[in-house]
Amino acid sequence: MAREDGRGPDQLRPVKITRSWLAHAEGSVLVEFGGTKVLCAASVQDSVPRWRRGSGLGWITAEYAMLPRATNTRSDRESVRGKIGGRTHEISRLIGRSLRACVDYKALGENSIVLDCDVLQADGGTRTAAITGAYVALADAIAWMRKRKMCPGDPLVNSVAAVSVGIVGATPLLDLCYTEDVAAETDMNVVMTGTGEFVEVQGTAEGVPFDRSTLDALLDLAATGCTELTLRQRESLS
Amino acid sequence: MAREDGRGPDQLRPVKITRSWLAHAEGSVLVEFGGTKVLCAASVQDSVPRWRRGSGLGWITAEYAMLPRATNTRSDRESVRGKIGGRTHEISRLIGRSLRACVDYKALGENSIVLDCDVLQADGGTRTAAITGAYVALADAIAWMRKRKMCPGDPLVNSVAAVSVGIVGATPLLDLCYTEDVAAETDMNVVMTGTGEFVEVQGTAEGVPFDRSTLDALLDLAATGCTELTLRQRESLS
Amino acid sequence: MAREDGRGPDQLRPVKITRSWLAHAEGSVLVEFGGTKVLCAASVQDSVPRWRRGSGLGWITAEYAMLPRATNTRSDRESVRGKIGGRTHEISRLIGRSLRACVDYKALGENSIVLDCDVLQADGGTRTAAITGAYVALADAIAWMRKRKMCPGDPLVNSVAAVSVGIVGATPLLDLCYTEDVAAETDMNVVMTGTGEFVEVQGTAEGVPFDRSTLDALLDLAATGCTELTLRQRESLS
Amino acid sequence: MAREDGRGPDQLRPVKITRSWLAHAEGSVLVEFGGTKVLCAASVQDSVPRWRRGSGLGWITAEYAMLPRATNTRSDRESVRGKIGGRTHEISRLIGRSLRACVDYKALGENSIVLDCDVLQADGGTRTAAITGAYVALADAIAWMRKRKMCPGDPLVNSVAAVSVGIVGATPLLDLCYTEDVAAETDMNVVMTGTGEFVEVQGTAEGVPFDRSTLDALLDLAATGCTELTLRQRESLS
Amino acid sequence: MAREDGRGPDQLRPVKITRSWLAHAEGSVLVEFGGTKVLCAASVQDSVPRWRRGSGLGWITAEYAMLPRATNTRSDRESVRGKIGGRTHEISRLIGRSLRACVDYKALGENSIVLDCDVLQADGGTRTAAITGAYVALADAIAWMRKRKMCPGDPLVNSVAAVSVGIVGATPLLDLCYTEDVAAETDMNVVMTGTGEFVEVQGTAEGVPFDRSTLDALLDLAATGCTELTLRQRESLS
Amino acid sequence: MAREDGRGPDQLRPVKITRSWLAHAEGSVLVEFGGTKVLCAASVQDSVPRWRRGSGLGWITAEYAMLPRATNTRSDRESVRGKIGGRTHEISRLIGRSLRACVDYKALGENSIVLDCDVLQADGGTRTAAITGAYVALADAIAWMRKRKMCPGDPLVNSVAAVSVGIVGATPLLDLCYTEDVAAETDMNVVMTGTGEFVEVQGTAEGVPFDRSTLDALLDLAATGCTELTLRQRESLS
Repeated sequence: MAREDGRGPDQLRPVKITRSWLAHAEGSVLVEFGGTKVLCAASVQDSVPRWRRGSGLGWITAEYAMLPRATNTRSDRESVRGKIGGRTHEISRLIGRSLRACVDYKALGENSIVLDCDVLQADGGTRTAAITGAYVALADAIAWMRKRKMCPGDPLVNSVAAVSVGIVGATPLLDLCYTEDVAAETDMNVVMTGTGEFVEVQGTAEGVPFDRSTLDALLDLAATGCTELTLRQRESLS
Repeated sequence: MAREDGRGPDQLRPVKITRSWLAHAEGSVLVEFGGTKVLCAASVQDSVPRWRRGSGLGWITAEYAMLPRATNTRSDRESVRGKIGGRTHEISRLIGRSLRACVDYKALGENSIVLDCDVLQADGGTRTAAITGAYVALADAIAWMRKRKMCPGDPLVNSVAAVSVGIVGATPLLDLCYTEDVAAETDMNVVMTGTGEFVEVQGTAEGVPFDRSTLDALLDLAATGCTELTLRQRESLS
Repeated sequence: MAREDGRGPDQLRPVKITRSWLAHAEGSVLVEFGGTKVLCAASVQDSVPRWRRGSGLGWITAEYAMLPRATNTRSDRESVRGKIGGRTHEISRLIGRSLRACVDYKALGENSIVLDCDVLQADGGTRTAAITGAYVALADAIAWMRKRKMCPGDPLVNSVAAVSVGIVGATPLLDLCYTEDVAAETDMNVVMTGTGEFVEVQGTAEGVPFDRSTLDALLDLAATGCTELTLRQRESLS
Repeated sequence: MAREDGRGPDQLRPVKITRSWLAHAEGSVLVEFGGTKVLCAASVQDSVPRWRRGSGLGWITAEYAMLPRATNTRSDRESVRGKIGGRTHEISRLIGRSLRACVDYKALGENSIVLDCDVLQADGGTRTAAITGAYVALADAIAWMRKRKMCPGDPLVNSVAAVSVGIVGATPLLDLCYTEDVAAETDMNVVMTGTGEFVEVQGTAEGVPFDRSTLDALLDLAATGCTELTLRQRESLS
Repeated sequence: MAREDGRGPDQLRPVKITRSWLAHAEGSVLVEFGGTKVLCAASVQDSVPRWRRGSGLGWITAEYAMLPRATNTRSDRESVRGKIGGRTHEISRLIGRSLRACVDYKALGENSIVLDCDVLQADGGTRTAAITGAYVALADAIAWMRKRKMCPGDPLVNSVAAVSVGIVGATPLLDLCYTEDVAAETDMNVVMTGTGEFVEVQGTAEGVPFDRSTLDALLDLAATGCTELTLRQRESLS
Repeated sequence: MAREDGRGPDQLRPVKITRSWLAHAEGSVLVEFGGTKVLCAASVQDSVPRWRRGSGLGWITAEYAMLPRATNTRSDRESVRGKIGGRTHEISRLIGRSLRACVDYKALGENSIVLDCDVLQADGGTRTAAITGAYVALADAIAWMRKRKMCPGDPLVNSVAAVSVGIVGATPLLDLCYTEDVAAETDMNVVMTGTGEFVEVQGTAEGVPFDRSTLDALLDLAATGCTELTLRQRESLS
């Protein structure tokens, strides 16, 4: 089965990571996975949430959102509706957990970093692009802090990258674009460290439940994708 | 490592499924996984959401919530705070997706079933107990509908059950209670069909990222647990 | 006029008070008035609201809510709608006021007790069952506190119980079930102390305004009911 | 015990009912009970809420609110806080129920009347002043409708008036002002028809529970007050 | 073109300023511009918002709202809808900015004054009436403070008044009533000090964009109106 | 007085208009006024709001928002706070009114265009950049509609552009950047058509009230700026 953009089943879309896209943020990245564009801003705060004060430990949190016309059809703003939808909540939490996996809170000291991931244009894989880009913004923000000697140690103990995989028409595919995502029977988002361990594995049978061998094939594919993305992050940061 | 309640690492807590716990609901179950008690109510509606009208297809949805004193420390009501938290949203969506995996929408006709899963007492695994109990409530509600000839066919094409697994002190454990859940380095919720396929796999590295062999061990353990829970569901329904 | 469940006009429905229904709460009761089931949890907090700090006095508050499928037809969750309805507010306030009538704030010290009354199943009289059950949960919570020497004195100076009365088809009836409540011309909720004084009297002409002799008959009936409920509370607590 | 404004215990404060205070409303009244000033506006709508459509019956509803500086200390606006407080809800519901007691829905036809009662200045008894004034605004609105032949019959079958009574320092007092209200051990709001029946009786023990003879004394006093207020309403309308 | 109430194009409607309309507020005014009636209450607080603490400077803020039946057709309460509309926000901010223009924060000391402007009846020009009346209430509140020696100096350094102007059928008109406002092609609200400078100029082309000469004519007219209103304020305060 | 970026007092910052920045929107522009970057998306809908149905007329509306890290310090998301702030409301309304001034509703037919203006980076003048960019996005969306013959005529009857002007240190300056905006005594936003008429004039004395000659100088400066911006819009569209 040919993919609509001519990629092989185990090929990523063109990945573009533009650092320092914003003037004010301590770290900022415009990350593109094909037609998906996410603006990631890392904001440093020299304080931690109330429940963590006095612990000597830092904190990392994330907020994900989509501009109303990021998608093919305009969707209402969550600020206008007055509440945040379940999907937004879920993805914000996933991004936060993922990035916390590569940070040493003690070395960070009692500082916080907020990662705002705003989808400017959506074509599938917005959460995985957000995690992959947010890591680079986080690395820049931490470099900014270290230059100012804000941290007692080096808080960045690893890197994280994320990719989506799925079964479309019985074939396992890497990095689904929107039309593939809609057609997928099974859909999985995988977050891995730069050293190849899993941080998050979220697989969902959209239509037909899947067996263990399918799961294994998808995990293999995801590992390939994350390895490749880790390389792109390193190139971008060097 | 001994578990605090003396269980083996691959043993479920005592499971209790009490059907028809409520007088009004078309299907209702009080499900207990050890100290975790979830009241699952299935409500039949002879209509579908607007976006599905005229399709001839049914719909299944779920809402999860926790009573303020289900937990060791009282938490504020979401109705009083005026908004639903991210965790609640996320679990409601998970339960809905899980149960949709065992239903044939066409055979259901243009009817909806809402599954309300209210945690009366929490001791770990509330979402997996909710899914396991909600399936039984759903089966009862569908039987109620079929007796009234509301469905064009038999909508129940499979069963679903769910269990949590995790790594505590390097040991993979099945069906974590609250203290184990808090101590877990890696935590995974797995939803499987009665025929042994995966519906949802959600693994999270709480502390240390995990490798593929750990993931494999956890999936094996979860499969054992879901097989056992499927048996309990069948016994309860027969 | 015969009542649908064969009771005499001045007879209560079967009352069942199950203490310690929840593992975590300092006091908890599942109270049943016939088909009405309310779960009452008393949560002790060693602090008081801001406006009361430094006064040396304690505080008692209550929150009432109904599960979506407590009723014959499913109702939307208040947390999902994003606001609490007037009826919920009104009943929460009534329960709080009622229980405050049997507590000596000075003897309680600067501690608070929150009473959560969640209706699991509704068949009329949910607020009166809630008050009657919450008193027992409160007594248990206060006993728990006294064992831990948290209170400067004995805060429990009386008991409270509540019952509904109404005129259905010209006959005054005690403890209305749902179908009687709907049919009632006049409906009254009465909260009394264990020593026979009134705490709250709330009478409403649903259809036809009522005269003084009707009011008197209803108050007599309510006094009978509250005396009986006080006995049940004492039996349960001994 | 002398009252601070020199009234006898069974005397109302000066009552002033100014009709047609607003230019746009179909009925409007500025009602004053001493220092309490409530602006009551009756708005006619030629439709009914959805659940009542096609029934041939009308509907009456009410909304109560207080300006931020009606009270001695400024309170926050409920619109700014984003939610309506329990007290506001409770009083709005009370006013609605009270006025529905004097209306024949069939004679009203499928029309609605909304009664907005906005407290411009508060000095105790705002809810009872609101009910007493809203009745006059309602009567004017119904006259306006009948002139336009909007109603199939005469919807006004009775009148309603309301007054507060309470025990202050062991003495039963009529029509409590703010300082008396704060000092009251027992507080009761009574709504009566022009023909002397009860519509609502809401008695609350603020401090000490009260016995039947106290209740009887308060009801007697309230009946006196409502009779007097009914006279004032008639004078105002003639 | 004759105006419906017989005024000349450069004539204000009858202006009425009633001071001390409320008993509790430190300053209060019922201001009337023809059929427009706004109740302005100034509330003194001996504190400032958090961001201003320790600065030695005071603060002035305002809130504007409309009663539901101030208008010809009843509108929903913002408290019931759960959010404040854009128009309300915009006008509240305008009133606050306008009044801050005549206050010396240093002379005010760390005190705040909140100006509540509630429209009881609307017939065009509610925001300009609110500003004009709120100034008088502010002056009274400041006098009240100075009598109590709360202010380090005299905070009132100028006065402000406001008026609307517009082009209706090619003629520039002063102080538009509602029907004129609806018919206006261009509509401008102008806030000026008692010494003749501009504080706010807000002109909007409702239909046809306007040229500089039209703008000049409207500004001239507004200056005339504000001069006249300043006189009325002085008369009222003397 | 030299400006920090070396501009003359009547000089605009570098203006950059990038069309078709988004793949999905019918019209989209990334507009830059120096460091201010606003993403404007025009979304076409073949329907109108309810109150306009059946009129044969179209509608234009706008929503303005700022990303959390558009500014120097991170601000909370309005979706998370659950309500839209007054400033956001005010600017959204201004943009909508401004763009409606260049559209013939009849020629548009019963179609709507929503203009989403999201500030990605803020350095003063975000609202004027938004209006100037949104006009270009609107023109593209209308061209898209006309190609598909959705409009009965040509809805674009004029163009609009906007600029800020202000008095900083007694000098009138064009197109204020953030530091100038903060320092300005008087601040004015002016929206003009491509043919030189005014659509909106909003002047505010931030500190000292201003006289007529200052107002005149600012209007002259604004006219210069809008003429220049109109040219840039034309170049971009040709």
